[in-house]
Amino acid sequence: MSAELSVGCRELAQRARVASRSLARLTRAAKDRWLHRLADRLGQPNELLLRANEQDVAEAATHGLTAAQVDRLRLTPARLRDAAQGLREVAALPDPVGQVLGGGIRPNGLEVRKVAVPLGVVLFIYESRPNVTLDAAALCVKSGNAVILRGGKEALASNRALHQLLVEELQAEGLPADAVQLVTDPDRAAVGYLLQLDEFIDVVIPRGGEQLIRRVAREARMPVLKHYQGICHVYVDRAADLPRAERIVLNAKCQRPGVCNAMECLLVDAAIAELFLPQVARSLHGRGVELRGCERTCQLVGEARPATPQDFNTEFLDLILAIRVVAGLDEALDHIAQHGSKHTEAIVTNDLNTARRFTQEVDAATVLVNASTRFNDGYELGLGAEIGISTDKFHARGPCGLLELTSYKYVVYGDGQVRGE
Amino acid sequence: MSAELSVGCRELAQRARVASRSLARLTRAAKDRWLHRLADRLGQPNELLLRANEQDVAEAATHGLTAAQVDRLRLTPARLRDAAQGLREVAALPDPVGQVLGGGIRPNGLEVRKVAVPLGVVLFIYESRPNVTLDAAALCVKSGNAVILRGGKEALASNRALHQLLVEELQAEGLPADAVQLVTDPDRAAVGYLLQLDEFIDVVIPRGGEQLIRRVAREARMPVLKHYQGICHVYVDRAADLPRAERIVLNAKCQRPGVCNAMECLLVDAAIAELFLPQVARSLHGRGVELRGCERTCQLVGEARPATPQDFNTEFLDLILAIRVVAGLDEALDHIAQHGSKHTEAIVTNDLNTARRFTQEVDAATVLVNASTRFNDGYELGLGAEIGISTDKFHARGPCGLLELTSYKYVVYGDGQVRGE
Repeated sequence: MSAELSVGCRELAQRARVASRSLARLTRAAKDRWLHRLADRLGQPNELLLRANEQDVAEAATHGLTAAQVDRLRLTPARLRDAAQGLREVAALPDPVGQVLGGGIRPNGLEVRKVAVPLGVVLFIYESRPNVTLDAAALCVKSGNAVILRGGKEALASNRALHQLLVEELQAEGLPADAVQLVTDPDRAAVGYLLQLDEFIDVVIPRGGEQLIRRVAREARMPVLKHYQGICHVYVDRAADLPRAERIVLNAKCQRPGVCNAMECLLVDAAIAELFLPQVARSLHGRGVELRGCERTCQLVGEARPATPQDFNTEFLDLILAIRVVAGLDEALDHIAQHGSKHTEAIVTNDLNTARRFTQEVDAATVLVNASTRFNDGYELGLGAEIGISTDKFHARGPCGLLELTSYKYVVYGDGQVRGE
Repeated sequence: MSAELSVGCRELAQRARVASRSLARLTRAAKDRWLHRLADRLGQPNELLLRANEQDVAEAATHGLTAAQVDRLRLTPARLRDAAQGLREVAALPDPVGQVLGGGIRPNGLEVRKVAVPLGVVLFIYESRPNVTLDAAALCVKSGNAVILRGGKEALASNRALHQLLVEELQAEGLPADAVQLVTDPDRAAVGYLLQLDEFIDVVIPRGGEQLIRRVAREARMPVLKHYQGICHVYVDRAADLPRAERIVLNAKCQRPGVCNAMECLLVDAAIAELFLPQVARSLHGRGVELRGCERTCQLVGEARPATPQDFNTEFLDLILAIRVVAGLDEALDHIAQHGSKHTEAIVTNDLNTARRFTQEVDAATVLVNASTRFNDGYELGLGAEIGISTDKFHARGPCGLLELTSYKYVVYGDGQVRGE
């Protein structure tokens, strides 16, 4: 029943809101003890969890999952150990809540402090991998937020078992059990109802396919932390160290092609194209990368087939690369402004002025000089674990870790100050 | 013609977007020179401007403006001098663009910097006072943003003249004239069209009546920086210094009752109500404040008439005050959680534990101890001039000055780093 589901979503969100008030005042010690308890539990044999996961894996075919997707779904003892390690790492991160972000004493003696506070209630919508359930709950609760988890239906049994574990340890630690909620109704309408509840939910974070994210952005009445796509470029400039450029290009494309900060398009300065492209193309081809090039690229590279215009607007998430030879920095900047998704852009150059222009003029969450696009990641940039990457300019941009799950308030102490006419 | 207006809005927003790219790279010196040029111009006789303003004032009656509103509309030489002074103060503020907000060197040698960048294009929708036109343009351009101004129709002639002045001085300084756009079509539909253009506009800031702000929040496809209401409380605790409490209460209510950070409701601890309320009520009444009290208040205070439930949910913006006697801190916190608008809340107390609980548990943009609510203001908190106050938790909260008109990006320098398996 739709009306029943709507009421259920509302009650669940309301319970999360109530829990968020006491969560906001938890000490770091209590939150970290909960994370360590969870990590300990994951290290112990857990028949219930493994059986639930087996059920999901067994039913995966009926959801039309590929072999790779089924593999990502599977919880093995090794993966649970990794997940436990992840929880311990979140425990080791500083608590963002209460951090003094700024302030000072005003001329009239008012003491002003800008203090980090939790956002409140986070709605997290994601697909497939059950270990994301643990990561998201850990990051939200550590930053003092209640969280509503909405995983994919293909991981529902695993997520139920993980949720039970999360809640048991909340209770064991004396924390509010409503702090972590799981939406178990597989009906798509549940998401639609939740996205209306801006009185209880402060932010929604969708992670998954572009279609899911666009739906959330369209329907949500609360702010959305998101990126649609990672169409990331590496521009190899005429002043590049070419062996270094090759290393960066291979890493950005091949090290993990299915993620948002992998390179999708290589831009090569015409001045060094003849010297650089045939060599790097051989290496890429040798690693199984399909090359789709502009006209000039195809002249220089036997392995490349002609790119279509659409290839320069595509996030392949696969061992496929679009290649274009550009006249120089200006054309590279124009190409990135037109085709980039404001996620991650890199240049390889030894020319200081070129590097400065690139970092200043490229409008993207992260701009790198002489390093792989793969470094646009919360851990790699020093923020610790991340709940997602934002390409928006509002609130947080780039990797979103614990601090990005907070807001702030001004706390002002005086001794009777009043404002003059 | 609606189609024509839609195309016009789109072209205007697109021009602002193009201008925003070069604005983002302006030096502070160029932006400050423009502000000083403007200030100089405002100090000179300006027939065109004064005649335009007279036209607005003459037509004010047809728009149904009150005498107070007509007064706010009027540009006098003294007000223009104040406006010029305001522009010089913005020039004196540090440039937020390029500020390094964080960063460090990672274990692998990557140099990471988190650098402030402009939001891009700001749509500013406001009512009445023409000097706000100057303030908004100054703050947006100083923070490297292009701005689209949509003032009230009652100030249209004045805003046209001010816009001309803004653009003339942009051109004189060699800055992009499209950086400051004015929407001159009085059709309400223009706002509707602009609110759809999230590809060109990064944020909308509505300032005015609650109805306007609700419409903008409902229709906007881009983020909104806003507050709906300022239902601000002062809670006078049993441990308050009572003469100090009286001074703060009078200031919070009477110093400027028509603004969002004025007090709308006084909460008094039952333990000191008999001692405090009759005295403060006399003072308030003496200043012309109408008192609407709870039952206990009416028993103690002859000047009060019974409050309706609605009085505790009303932003009077006038010399009217709701008063309630509460059992103590917990009831005060509950009342604020239920009736407050998350804008500004104050406590008067000398008890340290009470003060700490109040600042920690009240969920509002600014929480004050022993000071007037009127201090929730960009200038008073040390941010410099403000473009508005936000009660949301996403992006900026509290007064929004230059830094709150920026986003950031990560700039990473390496020497060939690639990411390991």
